[in-house]
Amino acid sequence: MTAPVAAVDAWMAANRPRLLDELLAFIATPSVSTDPAYAAGMAAAADLLLVRLGRIGLNDVQLLDGGGHQAVYGAWTGAAGAPTLLVYGHYDVQPPVPLELWQTPPFEPTIRDGRIYARGASDDKSPLWIAVSALEAWLAVHGRLPVNVKVLLEGEEEVGSAGLPAIMAAHRDLLAADVLVSADGGRWRAEPPTVNTNSRGLVSLEVHVRTAGRDLHSGRFGGPVGNAPMVLARLLAGLHDQQNRIVVEGFFDGLQRPSKADYDDMAALGFDPAAFFADIGARPGAIEPGVGLLESLWLRPTLEVNGIWGGYTGAGGKTVIPAEAHAKISCRLGPGQDPDRVAASLDAHLAARVPEWAVLVVEQTEPGTSAYAVPEDDPFLRAVERVIEQVHGAKPLHVGIGGTLPISAMAKQALGLETVTLSYAVADENIHAPNEFFRLASFDDGLKAWTRLLAEVGAMPGRG
Amino acid sequence: MTAPVAAVDAWMAANRPRLLDELLAFIATPSVSTDPAYAAGMAAAADLLLVRLGRIGLNDVQLLDGGGHQAVYGAWTGAAGAPTLLVYGHYDVQPPVPLELWQTPPFEPTIRDGRIYARGASDDKSPLWIAVSALEAWLAVHGRLPVNVKVLLEGEEEVGSAGLPAIMAAHRDLLAADVLVSADGGRWRAEPPTVNTNSRGLVSLEVHVRTAGRDLHSGRFGGPVGNAPMVLARLLAGLHDQQNRIVVEGFFDGLQRPSKADYDDMAALGFDPAAFFADIGARPGAIEPGVGLLESLWLRPTLEVNGIWGGYTGAGGKTVIPAEAHAKISCRLGPGQDPDRVAASLDAHLAARVPEWAVLVVEQTEPGTSAYAVPEDDPFLRAVERVIEQVHGAKPLHVGIGGTLPISAMAKQALGLETVTLSYAVADENIHAPNEFFRLASFDDGLKAWTRLLAEVGAMPGRG
Repeated sequence: MTAPVAAVDAWMAANRPRLLDELLAFIATPSVSTDPAYAAGMAAAADLLLVRLGRIGLNDVQLLDGGGHQAVYGAWTGAAGAPTLLVYGHYDVQPPVPLELWQTPPFEPTIRDGRIYARGASDDKSPLWIAVSALEAWLAVHGRLPVNVKVLLEGEEEVGSAGLPAIMAAHRDLLAADVLVSADGGRWRAEPPTVNTNSRGLVSLEVHVRTAGRDLHSGRFGGPVGNAPMVLARLLAGLHDQQNRIVVEGFFDGLQRPSKADYDDMAALGFDPAAFFADIGARPGAIEPGVGLLESLWLRPTLEVNGIWGGYTGAGGKTVIPAEAHAKISCRLGPGQDPDRVAASLDAHLAARVPEWAVLVVEQTEPGTSAYAVPEDDPFLRAVERVIEQVHGAKPLHVGIGGTLPISAMAKQALGLETVTLSYAVADENIHAPNEFFRLASFDDGLKAWTRLLAEVGAMPGRG
Repeated sequence: MTAPVAAVDAWMAANRPRLLDELLAFIATPSVSTDPAYAAGMAAAADLLLVRLGRIGLNDVQLLDGGGHQAVYGAWTGAAGAPTLLVYGHYDVQPPVPLELWQTPPFEPTIRDGRIYARGASDDKSPLWIAVSALEAWLAVHGRLPVNVKVLLEGEEEVGSAGLPAIMAAHRDLLAADVLVSADGGRWRAEPPTVNTNSRGLVSLEVHVRTAGRDLHSGRFGGPVGNAPMVLARLLAGLHDQQNRIVVEGFFDGLQRPSKADYDDMAALGFDPAAFFADIGARPGAIEPGVGLLESLWLRPTLEVNGIWGGYTGAGGKTVIPAEAHAKISCRLGPGQDPDRVAASLDAHLAARVPEWAVLVVEQTEPGTSAYAVPEDDPFLRAVERVIEQVHGAKPLHVGIGGTLPISAMAKQALGLETVTLSYAVADENIHAPNEFFRLASFDDGLKAWTRLLAEVGAMPGRG
């Protein structure tokens, strides 16, 4: 360990209680981007970050507007000749429903058994807090950073990062860097050490079916009249075969098969399927034939119903023929799939199968995102690997992430940047589900790792 | 018209404004039996009826307890030698949701265009009010009735009349009569005059699917894990073939084909399918092949999804794999089908098709009801036909009712009574749907008809 890093570590140890308290206050801010009812929480979270970036000594601190929830920006660019990192995280979180399944309220962060339980604790508030805290520590101890850093904390990751393309187009110089380092993304497991090298894409649709002008009494009208939830059920049932293989024509166009290196990385992980299923309380068997479990999680496309509703869903019964039924569906995409083409294939498949006596509307609710993979020889990937080895004592295995980081595809396209990931979330932390949590041990490891990343990259040559 | 009937008609004309005002107050009482949130409204509606039956001069007025919502009872049995009618209606109503589709609030009865708009206006509060008002008028004018009458107004019709078997078993003597006359059931259309001679049965089930111990992030877990709404969709889709024919083994066991008389009655009605579909804003084509429209409405079994729900259904998106999905389904039954056997056939069909990696629970939520038909030669059916001819100027056509009158099967089994129907609801009055209404013209016709029914039956020989 170098002396500058040791000094930062010491500062971290002394300031840990305050950093953690501030993190809990940040997590308690209910910043749900998808639901307008949380607009005040979104604004409060952005303000909190804005104040913090200024307080720790970043410059150019400002909100960047892409038409929706604003992104928070700040920079420190005094390391002439050193590389520039664009540090990425997101301050928005998923909706907390179903509330009744939370052991403690989702926006009252609670520490139990060495974990912070709250919505957003893992995705992505603690991981981004760690990155910002490493900047704070370096600046507090040394009055400077060993690298140039720009921080971009967006508020629309959970709704497809809709405003980021506009922000990137309007602020190319402000965001210019050598690489994007994502504090979002997470680790595969707490052990062994791993680094993410690819993520899946995402397409989201809503499907609406109508069969009559109004709900109808099932006795007075039942027989000659269509049933909207039944029509919807048949349409959804026709998207897969009985072995859970997607049967939508054109859906797989462009999909790349995993490489030998991909299979080798997955085999090296020594993954235990029994533990995976036991943890989530599910039985094995739903996987499509011929696909391995990790391939299924990281590289294969999916087609899920995220929500379905129609007719009477209250207490007791109601003998109604519902006139409408609705579903939210989304697909994770594998490498090579084009999001717009996937959406079009689904639209065409459903439209070809809806009976003539029903009305179907399919709408794409968020911009799609392609899958992303960082090149195997990227020098910043090497730097991240060295940092992880320093903190965890072993070279990290390469793993995929089944989730989607819209930022990666966008940063590549708009700014020409590759993405490396240094996030201390772990994939088992009930992300997007009740009782989301973050490990306090990850908080300490993450502070160490981000401190070392700044030092490692500071020793690398800059772009010019 | 006889002098006694003319005198009652005159009283009706003079008292119509008060009778109508009282009816509106009755309808305004929110008596939703299926939802415990309306318990106070249920109790208030029963009290209101109890007070009214006593005030108009019935005896033995009391609440009858079958374990759930109580039934209201009253009797006048001073017509020695005359037949005894058991007059039936129900004071409970369907839930008013979806509230946003009502033009005026469901429990604020509003008169527009000669119609009363409110939940329960047609099913069954106005029809039962007409029957009770005819008793009030006869007693007010003549101090007596020409027949013996027992009134049974239950509070659980919309939840399968769960308590009626217990009430009938405990009060056989109190309910002893020559025939049950139902103020529930309704007419096919306002014109031509019709009389109901059969009704369909009903079986209701809830279907629950579980695929994991909790909701899961679709990125972190999507691929090897089952999706509960998708499993439910496939199960529901497998209940019919593509032509909407039910394909559940054993479902049709015992179903009787319509008779020549049934087909003749349906042909005589001169039914217009185009108007039927235009009225409900639906396109034709959903009917199973080879079945006529009226047969489909009155005599064929159905299998409907009444409600479906699972996962995230709020604003925006949520990339979750729902661990649970649910559906309420119900079947209208044709003559000869056994409700328990139908429920068992559905249970077996679904259980045989659920994948081994999902958990299925099917529960029957209400007691089933068989279909019912009154014998063609029933003397009280003749009396009802004569009454309708007097009021409407033409002999009524026989029609079926696609809905279910649990009382008919129960009265036959427990009390040995056939059921005839004299209800002034019309099948097009948005029953069980938003903007339910009742025609004020039916209010006047109904008062005339019930007045004449008492006179007609008074001229018939009694059982003793």
